[in-house]
Amino acid sequence: MQHYFINSDSLNLTTWEVTIVEDAFHIANVMRMTVGERIVVIAADSSYLVELTNINPKMCVGQIIEELSFDNELKTKVTIAHAFVRREKQEDTIEKITELGAYAYMPVIMERCNVKIDLDKQDKKRTRIEKIIKEASEQSHRTSLMKLYDVCSFKALLNQSQNYDLCLVCDTTTNPYDISSIVNDDNIKNVLVLIGPEGGISENELKQLENNNFKKISLGKRILRTEVAPLFVMAIFAGSEEIL
Amino acid sequence: MQHYFINSDSLNLTTWEVTIVEDAFHIANVMRMTVGERIVVIAADSSYLVELTNINPKMCVGQIIEELSFDNELKTKVTIAHAFVRREKQEDTIEKITELGAYAYMPVIMERCNVKIDLDKQDKKRTRIEKIIKEASEQSHRTSLMKLYDVCSFKALLNQSQNYDLCLVCDTTTNPYDISSIVNDDNIKNVLVLIGPEGGISENELKQLENNNFKKISLGKRILRTEVAPLFVMAIFAGSEEIL
Repeated sequence: MQHYFINSDSLNLTTWEVTIVEDAFHIANVMRMTVGERIVVIAADSSYLVELTNINPKMCVGQIIEELSFDNELKTKVTIAHAFVRREKQEDTIEKITELGAYAYMPVIMERCNVKIDLDKQDKKRTRIEKIIKEASEQSHRTSLMKLYDVCSFKALLNQSQNYDLCLVCDTTTNPYDISSIVNDDNIKNVLVLIGPEGGISENELKQLENNNFKKISLGKRILRTEVAPLFVMAIFAGSEEIL
Repeated sequence: MQHYFINSDSLNLTTWEVTIVEDAFHIANVMRMTVGERIVVIAADSSYLVELTNINPKMCVGQIIEELSFDNELKTKVTIAHAFVRREKQEDTIEKITELGAYAYMPVIMERCNVKIDLDKQDKKRTRIEKIIKEASEQSHRTSLMKLYDVCSFKALLNQSQNYDLCLVCDTTTNPYDISSIVNDDNIKNVLVLIGPEGGISENELKQLENNNFKKISLGKRILRTEVAPLFVMAIFAGSEEIL
């Protein structure tokens, strides 16, 4: 069944009516749904089974049949802090980690990011990325939208770190922290995982990370590119929680 | 250090000399290496530390310093059988599962693949994909190239299944097989994992798979697209073997 994230304003919990504007074109002209068909709408982290009563490419209306009680989010909230990469790679990463259940994505400017960042263009970019997150969340049947942070400095990342139960940094070193102890620890609800740029994390940065209590983790024997490492991290968390 | 897969013909184990033609341009003009710099070459699953003695965009020569004894392959050989998808998605999947350590990739024609397959173009496509595999293997420091099968029919897939210690199919059903028992079983050295098309696996196909001893596995609560599921599967195997 098709899922749609909508604004909570579009939901009238007195009349149990839902008004859909943003996705009306998709419902009417892409999915070509007809009156009586059902969809799932998610508003403010609650899900509802909705029967469509009026279909128009500009606005659709539906009647709530029942509130649903499924939760497809991971118990561990994983925030991926990712060195700033070029647009296509970033979008690809964001789309895939959304499907894999990441809680949030935080692009970070690091020493060895060899990508120019035009801060004036970030607003336009943000709109585009939010659309990617919404669509990936709908298609993968998530019950919350992945959170998107604005591009931040390395210093801002370090300042953020105290908001997490655990901070990790992916690095190929000799004595990595044992990640299995984390994924089975119920006290760790909020994890930040940093993935560095193609050029690697500088020694200076690594020192500051260690001073701010970041633990190094290894991602196995093979060297993963900066856009593949976040997928691997998310698959490990999702796999440990739901499969292994 | 830069890694290159070369033909075993290019290796002279009497004089300990290596001749590199295919990657000569990359060494000379992309990496701009100079005489005396070292690379790792891999030929016929053996790795060598090589010092460059002559650099030219058309042919480079190097002297073997020593044979190396590292192995970055997974113990469990995982073959990803993947419903035929359109070119960009297939190439993206292949690149990423190569990095994640897949043993082989097998594109399969299934009932609900809604992509036209032009078998005449498969040769040209194969050359392109082999290049992607080579580059992804080099960049991720693999010690063997991922194997690439030609496009095969569903029937051929079923016939192949007896060559594996275990065959799995990703499916969202109520009673999935417990994948954790597999990843820790040393007797299972050769696993085939089938990922169906966007439209899903047909009931008829599912029945035939079960008759051929394929076990259903779940990939967690969220619905993964057909190009993300193979990455998830590989991350689970790699993560279980090397990290968790």
